[in-house]
Amino acid sequence: MKVKKLKLLLIKILMKYGLNYNHSIITSNALINAELVGAHSHGLSRLKMYCERISKKVINPKPKIKIKKISKSISHIDADNSIGFVAADIAIKKTIENAKNTGIGLVAVKKSGHYGMSGYYAEQAVKKNLIVMIFTNAPPAVAPHGASKRLFGTNPICFGAPTASKIPFILDTSISVINRGKLRLAAHNKQKIPKGVALDKFGKPTIDAKKALEGVQLPIAEFRGSGLAWMVDILSGVLTGGNHAGKVKDPFDDFTGPQNIGHLFISFKSNLFQKNFNQRIKENIKVIKKLPKIKGVKEIMYPGQNKFKRFKENSKKEIKVPKNIKKDLEFLLK
Amino acid sequence: MKVKKLKLLLIKILMKYGLNYNHSIITSNALINAELVGAHSHGLSRLKMYCERISKKVINPKPKIKIKKISKSISHIDADNSIGFVAADIAIKKTIENAKNTGIGLVAVKKSGHYGMSGYYAEQAVKKNLIVMIFTNAPPAVAPHGASKRLFGTNPICFGAPTASKIPFILDTSISVINRGKLRLAAHNKQKIPKGVALDKFGKPTIDAKKALEGVQLPIAEFRGSGLAWMVDILSGVLTGGNHAGKVKDPFDDFTGPQNIGHLFISFKSNLFQKNFNQRIKENIKVIKKLPKIKGVKEIMYPGQNKFKRFKENSKKEIKVPKNIKKDLEFLLK
Repeated sequence: MKVKKLKLLLIKILMKYGLNYNHSIITSNALINAELVGAHSHGLSRLKMYCERISKKVINPKPKIKIKKISKSISHIDADNSIGFVAADIAIKKTIENAKNTGIGLVAVKKSGHYGMSGYYAEQAVKKNLIVMIFTNAPPAVAPHGASKRLFGTNPICFGAPTASKIPFILDTSISVINRGKLRLAAHNKQKIPKGVALDKFGKPTIDAKKALEGVQLPIAEFRGSGLAWMVDILSGVLTGGNHAGKVKDPFDDFTGPQNIGHLFISFKSNLFQKNFNQRIKENIKVIKKLPKIKGVKEIMYPGQNKFKRFKENSKKEIKVPKNIKKDLEFLLK
Repeated sequence: MKVKKLKLLLIKILMKYGLNYNHSIITSNALINAELVGAHSHGLSRLKMYCERISKKVINPKPKIKIKKISKSISHIDADNSIGFVAADIAIKKTIENAKNTGIGLVAVKKSGHYGMSGYYAEQAVKKNLIVMIFTNAPPAVAPHGASKRLFGTNPICFGAPTASKIPFILDTSISVINRGKLRLAAHNKQKIPKGVALDKFGKPTIDAKKALEGVQLPIAEFRGSGLAWMVDILSGVLTGGNHAGKVKDPFDDFTGPQNIGHLFISFKSNLFQKNFNQRIKENIKVIKKLPKIKGVKEIMYPGQNKFKRFKENSKKEIKVPKNIKKDLEFLLK
């Protein structure tokens, strides 16, 4: 399906479910971007879930979003259980505004929901020559180090920086060995998952994606990854007023209330300390790219390069809509 | 040796090498703290190296440290190649001051050196009810993902938060599977290292610490850890005006010039968005500690708990000074 046609279709569906035109555009753009960068687990495959959550009144289609000014640099957003994309869109724009005005911006969000990919918002800040860090928590997936029960989300850490080229440096990494979205997709497609990624509900290693979903995912690097996940839970949950300590509901399985996810956005001007930041980052990347490579590696890539490449390639083509997603779209249009 | 006696001895040595009384105290305190928390690789074992660097004029014992005010929240420090401890001490105090005044503090440092453990400085901010993040780069140790040559330092990521208890939440994690200091100590003591931690200089896996030191250390979680290391190099090197892209000199092996390490300190008030932050973090930790544990685990610990425990226990005892360190001390006193 052509991007334009798909976008109109998504807007139609979202408006039918009660979002206003502007919020529908924001949401459609984010979902289509996920498809274009190849993150299908964060794209169309979630649309039905979002609509269901609106129907069941656990996403608020007509939120009264409040932005509280704490200082010229710092803001607090109560997203009133809006769809996460809208909350994050407002938050990143506020962060950029604060950083442009004062050098640094810090924006906390509470009462939000799943907003897709942090990197999508990081890109917006990087395009304005800002360095940016984004943290969000997520439903229980990963066991804290020493625990046998999942509690942390895959809690991504996202960092973006300008590179003096079209392709921004965007690190957007979950602290689990595998993304939960990928795991869900593997379970759906009945694919096996690699060893060392997850345990089943009895605490035994498994390569069965469905059993892994019922069990616990493993954090990267044991106590290090567990500590990073805990940090993200504090920054995006404890600090902001969002849910934390495992209380974020799974958007697919739990319709008993809003998710109340929290996010934290930090951004500052890249040339605060060195006027020639652009030249410095260019030199940095150049030196690293010139290193001798291990066998089979053609190019040393910086984070975000692969995603950008996929985006560029996919933007030229139509978006493939799998059968099950087509069914979803038809169902949602009825 | 009693802590007090050791401290006086260190001050005597550092002053003999040209540091002033105040800088000698700052440095001694940091080195002794490292011993007390059990991080021997960051304690007395480095004293001789620091003194040698002063003798060879690659650490400046009489630095003219300049603090440039960029805004009420943001400062830039040129440490004039001071010993890292002094630069970091000034920087964390400035960060705390800025955060206390405006809600958020951002301080970048250039022309610094190895400052011991990030967690030591994070603690100071946490004691003032601040949340803190600290980044520093380090000499080449870790190969970027896809490269066969080391370039990134073990580039620690440090995060601290108040816990409403005496024991702060301090995550201080290098992005390498093993700390370089531990590796150095293992090489010195002729101990083997675990599998999967490092490659020798020919790119082959090794459990020989000496061969690992000559080769490359592996980042945690492959491209994720490599990306985090790259992020730290940008934040602490490219951004600040410090060396980056592998140009930080090894303090033990390379006396051809100052290290020019960069650091970045970010801190903000923990109760910016939620007045009851203390209650929320207490609840967070309580819930996580109550999770069912895997076999053999007595308690789920948060980052920093173990270190605090060791500090408390060791503070009651005398500090054990190994033979080789005693020799160093005698040599330095001559």
